[in-house]
Amino acid sequence: MLPALFTRMIAVLFGREGRSLHLRAAGGATIVLVVVMLCGSWAVVAVEEGAHRANLTSYPRALWWSIETATTVGYGDFYPVTVWGRVVAAIVMVVGITTYGMVTAALATWFVGREQRRGGTWHHLREETAALHERFDRIERMLTGKRDGD
Amino acid sequence: MLPALFTRMIAVLFGREGRSLHLRAAGGATIVLVVVMLCGSWAVVAVEEGAHRANLTSYPRALWWSIETATTVGYGDFYPVTVWGRVVAAIVMVVGITTYGMVTAALATWFVGREQRRGGTWHHLREETAALHERFDRIERMLTGKRDGD
Amino acid sequence: MLPALFTRMIAVLFGREGRSLHLRAAGGATIVLVVVMLCGSWAVVAVEEGAHRANLTSYPRALWWSIETATTVGYGDFYPVTVWGRVVAAIVMVVGITTYGMVTAALATWFVGREQRRGGTWHHLREETAALHERFDRIERMLTGKRDGD
Amino acid sequence: MLPALFTRMIAVLFGREGRSLHLRAAGGATIVLVVVMLCGSWAVVAVEEGAHRANLTSYPRALWWSIETATTVGYGDFYPVTVWGRVVAAIVMVVGITTYGMVTAALATWFVGREQRRGGTWHHLREETAALHERFDRIERMLTGKRDGD
Repeated sequence: MLPALFTRMIAVLFGREGRSLHLRAAGGATIVLVVVMLCGSWAVVAVEEGAHRANLTSYPRALWWSIETATTVGYGDFYPVTVWGRVVAAIVMVVGITTYGMVTAALATWFVGREQRRGGTWHHLREETAALHERFDRIERMLTGKRDGD
Repeated sequence: MLPALFTRMIAVLFGREGRSLHLRAAGGATIVLVVVMLCGSWAVVAVEEGAHRANLTSYPRALWWSIETATTVGYGDFYPVTVWGRVVAAIVMVVGITTYGMVTAALATWFVGREQRRGGTWHHLREETAALHERFDRIERMLTGKRDGD
Repeated sequence: MLPALFTRMIAVLFGREGRSLHLRAAGGATIVLVVVMLCGSWAVVAVEEGAHRANLTSYPRALWWSIETATTVGYGDFYPVTVWGRVVAAIVMVVGITTYGMVTAALATWFVGREQRRGGTWHHLREETAALHERFDRIERMLTGKRDGD
Repeated sequence: MLPALFTRMIAVLFGREGRSLHLRAAGGATIVLVVVMLCGSWAVVAVEEGAHRANLTSYPRALWWSIETATTVGYGDFYPVTVWGRVVAAIVMVVGITTYGMVTAALATWFVGREQRRGGTWHHLREETAALHERFDRIERMLTGKRDGD
């Protein structure tokens, strides 16, 4: 089931199936975030190793740290103390925030699209053009009636 | 009063009354968030119990912790120290962020809809179609006038 | 200068001058946030007073705490330790997040409106109706030409 | 390569090249944020110097602090302890949050614009006006046919 889901996800993200930009951007950003969190957890342990007062000393701890960093919770139970550890942290933060912004923007786009289809501009466009078609019908009847009257 | 409010809320969220997707999504996400926070508070105390240096040891404390986690404040006065406690925390964080994104997106959709109704595309659509109707009136007058002249 | 600015702000927020909902919502939420932060700072000192390990013991500190709470930074240098202090904190957090969501949504509405005016739906609506007016001109010329030929 | 990129960035932000407001606002806010973070790091060290229990004592540390403040992570490993340090922090927080809101709003505007172009209102506007043009063709044929029949 999982490989099938994975294949399907790849198809939606990179294939012709899912063509709307906002869904692909939100999905792509989420995948990038997960990869950055996994790689960042590994990288931060590697660069922090042996530093004075380092607290990010194992991969499971670093994974938890990357979760609380990407979500901007930041309890402060774990944090990098070296320059390169902080560079990794900054990348995780920025990717986390951007992903969150993309998801919010994709949700807004989805909602706005639904609203416009339901009762907004699209709906009124149809109503207004229906009124114009009625005018055409009337003019055609006038033109035809005249011919009949001739 | 409270049961009436609750019934009304259910009616808006799941009934035919509130049909706009964005309001239902924002409301539904808020309810899911409250449930996740209440259940998460209970779950985190259960899984953290007896762990070395555990600080989430009572339900009221855990409830406060779930509030500062879901809002991504994260003072760091309380935080989970076990793997399962951190899994619960990750769920509370992700649900909290998603709810917040949904509320922001719903607000944007509401504002955009209001703007379009007030002076945007909808307004201009009316203006432009009014001009077309005037043209129809003129053509009809021409057609009628001709008939009179015959 | 400041009283003039204040009067103007009141006029925009509550008068007939600023009629667009999104600007009033964002401005109103910001004012509510400032009031909640000022009152919350005072309230949290009052309820925390005398509590064991209380650290929010003076108004200037509490004001700084309300800033880092409303922006969801939460360093953890100050935090409430009593039930009522945490209730105050929860209110500051929720109002802060909602205000932020309103500002983001108002910005999005402003941008979307500008885009639609610049080269989006509105622009295309004008182009399409201009083409329809040309068709009317042609039909009117046909009707007039016929009359001339009689 | 870097100076070329910089020149290009200036051209897009301030020149006639990039005329869409949302891209310029998001780009401008990002530049303002970077400037505020760099200046804020320098300022916070200057005002915190010599204060009791000050922990923001060097520029590299203050730069890391400004990153975790602007992203609202706030681990609590570094934080200002003086009034002016907290004023600087508040500015960094507010600019950080506003930038983030602008980026989210710009993304939403970009997505909404793409959606409307792809299959939304614009698309339907074209369809509806195409139907009106067909009616014009029919009326013109009627008018011409009549003339032929005379």
